[in-house]
Amino acid sequence: MSEVYAVRRARLRDQCATAGNGAALVSRPANVRYLCGVAPPGAVLLLGPAQDVLVASETPTAPSWGVGSPSHPEDLRLLMLPGPDGDPAVAAADLAAADGAESLAVEEHDLTVARHRALGCAAPKLLLADLGRAVEQLRLIKDDEEISRLRIAGELADQALGELLESILVGRTERHLALELERRLVDHGADGPAFPTVVAAGPNAGRAGHLPTDRRVEEGDFLTICLGAEYRGYRCQVGRTFVIGPSPADWQVELYDLVFAAQRAGREALVPGTGYRDVDRVTRQVLDAAGYGDGLEPRTGHGVGLEIDEDPRLAPSAMGKLDACVPVTVEPGVHLPGRGGVRIDDTLVVRPEADGGPELLTITTKELLAL
Amino acid sequence: MSEVYAVRRARLRDQCATAGNGAALVSRPANVRYLCGVAPPGAVLLLGPAQDVLVASETPTAPSWGVGSPSHPEDLRLLMLPGPDGDPAVAAADLAAADGAESLAVEEHDLTVARHRALGCAAPKLLLADLGRAVEQLRLIKDDEEISRLRIAGELADQALGELLESILVGRTERHLALELERRLVDHGADGPAFPTVVAAGPNAGRAGHLPTDRRVEEGDFLTICLGAEYRGYRCQVGRTFVIGPSPADWQVELYDLVFAAQRAGREALVPGTGYRDVDRVTRQVLDAAGYGDGLEPRTGHGVGLEIDEDPRLAPSAMGKLDACVPVTVEPGVHLPGRGGVRIDDTLVVRPEADGGPELLTITTKELLAL
Repeated sequence: MSEVYAVRRARLRDQCATAGNGAALVSRPANVRYLCGVAPPGAVLLLGPAQDVLVASETPTAPSWGVGSPSHPEDLRLLMLPGPDGDPAVAAADLAAADGAESLAVEEHDLTVARHRALGCAAPKLLLADLGRAVEQLRLIKDDEEISRLRIAGELADQALGELLESILVGRTERHLALELERRLVDHGADGPAFPTVVAAGPNAGRAGHLPTDRRVEEGDFLTICLGAEYRGYRCQVGRTFVIGPSPADWQVELYDLVFAAQRAGREALVPGTGYRDVDRVTRQVLDAAGYGDGLEPRTGHGVGLEIDEDPRLAPSAMGKLDACVPVTVEPGVHLPGRGGVRIDDTLVVRPEADGGPELLTITTKELLAL
Repeated sequence: MSEVYAVRRARLRDQCATAGNGAALVSRPANVRYLCGVAPPGAVLLLGPAQDVLVASETPTAPSWGVGSPSHPEDLRLLMLPGPDGDPAVAAADLAAADGAESLAVEEHDLTVARHRALGCAAPKLLLADLGRAVEQLRLIKDDEEISRLRIAGELADQALGELLESILVGRTERHLALELERRLVDHGADGPAFPTVVAAGPNAGRAGHLPTDRRVEEGDFLTICLGAEYRGYRCQVGRTFVIGPSPADWQVELYDLVFAAQRAGREALVPGTGYRDVDRVTRQVLDAAGYGDGLEPRTGHGVGLEIDEDPRLAPSAMGKLDACVPVTVEPGVHLPGRGGVRIDDTLVVRPEADGGPELLTITTKELLAL
């Protein structure tokens, strides 16, 4: 396993060398984890001229960082700073300078101004450059092991959702249903929820990012549930909307069919070479044509992986094209103030049509269920 | 209520004016919440020469930001950026420049290098200064309303813990117990857990920041539980260690008594005027004298409030003295590798001796319970 991380680090080192930087400092936690397999709180990775070093400080939570991850790879030196006062980034800059680096590329989108200045003071001869989102770019296309973890995360989310649907929902609060879902995720082996679980009933249904309240589920409600599982660091999500009661009202069926059509259009657009914005456009235009264009979210989907919300963004202004083996969500929704709404959310992996097209990781039915 | 926030902003504005800065940009979420009552994800606060403006962007989670907080105060202008692409900090800098500010103090310990540069580009005539931890300093001493929320958060944590102790523990996993505690917190009205709940059984007991595993509770175990509740934004924590089975072993009683003595020494030192490091020292030296000095955590306590881990730090190198109305934890622990250990953790508010001394917010008994 640790070979994977060494290969990733070698790719990054090549890129840095091409850009003229002899060393790089990676501080963003998901990037550190991608390149090392572990990311102790506050730890940074130095890709130095002489050695790769994971620099961490002794923090109260340090003892637990082996949990759920492979132990640190052996081709990586581990440097523990004594005590909590040292900044691992400063120690890493020191080390880079001592090893003879002339320039150090840092993640300017992650390092604060105060830490950046401390680096400059600690190693005044080191030229600080910007690594930019180089590691995020490497993370875009997933390997088989990453996709297999995402697949399991999808199964865990499907499983928790499926079990909840077999229980009685009427009269229970959004909060309780959310907690039960999270408990079930963990029961089945998830590291934890991938993000705060959304349970949105009645007028709340269809709202993106709704935080569960004490609203109880009632007959006639739309009920939107969106949850995700983290499995060995990788995060996947699924969202569905149901109707509570024996049969949905006409407006509910119409709205559901519309959002379903939009979501299907987005899923079908997931072909290597399609622009991010084009996936967004085909999804969005179905809702727009029905008069719901104004209230829509700014994006209709996003990448997933070590973070639940990572590149690419599926949005009108997004630049770039889909590659094979990029996992994304497709999650359009419509919310009618005071009435509720519909949101349907899947995670899929982009695959060439010759391989059968996009791989659906979240297989819970998308028929409109009346519960 | 909104008057409180206006007063806090006025204090900060006075400090900025004294430092020669005509405007300030607050970006750290807990600081924004402290000064506005709400903190939509990504939002920043501009204390401008002409107006106070909360600048937010439309994000998927934006609709939920009224939850659990007062709606935004009326003496504060709200500026919503259309779409998710704009950085509220950049828009705020723009606005400050347009309003005639010459300098803008920013939170260099929060803003990334990339955002700081974007600010400079957007408003090139604006001199960017450092606000430092000015808002964190204002947050140190809590008012009655803040302490009352912390008090309720403490009651909620005590309640969840007390109920768990009445159930059967043997045979259940750390993960399950942690989830049950978090469910109970929410049942009783907490916004949620203040931090990931620690349940540590057997050899894990006494480890700070231990993440729950599938280890089951067994007869003869030490069991350490540390949990916290968030109530209307404020976070409080309690930690206790128990013995599982009819009677503790001699070594368990001895270790417990020792940690208890250390924790009591720390609590008794919570008097206005005492140095942060002196509270740490009296706690630490009890454990040190018994030969456990080496394996101790770098701090024996910390402030709580809008964040679970905020100023002051109770540590050997900490500078500064306690004031009245500062809430802190006192949480020494000893962990013996392979055997487990003890941790005892309370949240208290510093009060003058004339007012009865430190106010204990977490009242679960600290007798050694054999469960």
